[in-house]
Amino acid sequence: MTTSERLVDATRDLLWERGYVGTSPKAIQQRAGAGQGSMYHHFAGKSDLALAAIRRTAADLRAAAERALGGEGTAYARVEAYLRRERDVLRGCPVGRLTMDPDVVADDALRAPVDETLDWLRGRLADVLREGVQAGELDPALDPERTAAAVVATVQGGYVLARASGSAAAFDAAVDGLLALLAGRRTA
Amino acid sequence: MTTSERLVDATRDLLWERGYVGTSPKAIQQRAGAGQGSMYHHFAGKSDLALAAIRRTAADLRAAAERALGGEGTAYARVEAYLRRERDVLRGCPVGRLTMDPDVVADDALRAPVDETLDWLRGRLADVLREGVQAGELDPALDPERTAAAVVATVQGGYVLARASGSAAAFDAAVDGLLALLAGRRTA
Repeated sequence: MTTSERLVDATRDLLWERGYVGTSPKAIQQRAGAGQGSMYHHFAGKSDLALAAIRRTAADLRAAAERALGGEGTAYARVEAYLRRERDVLRGCPVGRLTMDPDVVADDALRAPVDETLDWLRGRLADVLREGVQAGELDPALDPERTAAAVVATVQGGYVLARASGSAAAFDAAVDGLLALLAGRRTA
Repeated sequence: MTTSERLVDATRDLLWERGYVGTSPKAIQQRAGAGQGSMYHHFAGKSDLALAAIRRTAADLRAAAERALGGEGTAYARVEAYLRRERDVLRGCPVGRLTMDPDVVADDALRAPVDETLDWLRGRLADVLREGVQAGELDPALDPERTAAAVVATVQGGYVLARASGSAAAFDAAVDGLLALLAGRRTA
C-alpha cells in the first residue's frame, strides 16, 4: 500500500471507532505509520482526508447492499437478504454513525457523502419494494418509499440498540420485528 | 439553580451536542459559569458528572414516552402517539446518540443508564402491543417484543436519516412507513 492509501485506511478505521471529533491528525499519522509532513503532502488536512475516507467507506457499503438487493429472488427475499447480511453489528454503521458527529453534520462537504449513501440505499430499497408491488407479490397499498425509509431506519436504529446492550441480539430482534410486519404484506 | 444543577445542565447540553468524547471539563465549566475548583468540589470528574447528566436526561425521556404510551386509546393509537410526539428531530436522541460514543460504550457505568432506558422503552412498547393483541385489536400472530424492538429502532434510525439529510422529513417518512406496516396488523 502507498502512504496515501495507508493514511486513508487509518482514517476510515478511526472514524468508525472514535468518530470525527474524536480523531486527531496525530492519531491518524501514528496508525498509518506516516509522518506529519507526509500527511500534509498528500492531503490538505483532516477534513480532506476524512472526505476521502468517507467516500471509500460509502462505496464499500453500497457494494455490500447491492450484492443483497441486486440478487435473485422475490422482493421480500432480497430485502431480507439485505437486512440479514453479515455485519459487524457492535461496531455500528461506519456511515450512519457519522451523523452523530457535530462537525460532520455542520460541514456540507463531509455530510454530502453520508446523505447521498443513505439516500441511495433508501431509493434502492424502494425500487425493490416497488418491483414486488408491480409483480403482484406485495400488497398494492404498500408505499415503497416510506417502507424503504422504515427499513433503513430499522438497520441504523438496530445498531444503536445493539451498542447500548452490548449484544447483537438487539439488532436481530428489531430486524425480525420489521420483517414479520413486511411479511404480513405479501399476497398469497 | 445551584452550581451543581448548572453543571449537570451544561453537561446534558454538551453531551447532546458534542457527545462525551467531544466534551471537555473546561467546556462544561465555561457553559455552567463555574470554576474548576467548584466542579471538582461537587463531582469527582467528567465521568461522574456525565453519569448524573445521563440519568437526568434518561428520566426526562421516560416521562415523555410514558405520557404517550400511558394515555387513552387503542394500542395502535398509543404507539402512534409515541412515534409522532414532538421531538427536536435534528438534534437526535440525547440518550441513543451516546451509543456512538466509544468512551460511553466502553464504560459499563456510563453505558448502563443508556441500556436501561432503551430497554425500558422497548419493554413498555411491548406491553402496549401485548395489550392490543390480548384485546383482539391486533393480529394474534404479532410478536410484541420484536415489534417493539422495530419501533424503537425506527425512531433511533429516523434520527440518523434526519441528521444525514438535514431535514425532519426523513424521520417522518420512516415513522409513516412503520405505522403503515403496523396498521396492516389491526383486526378490522
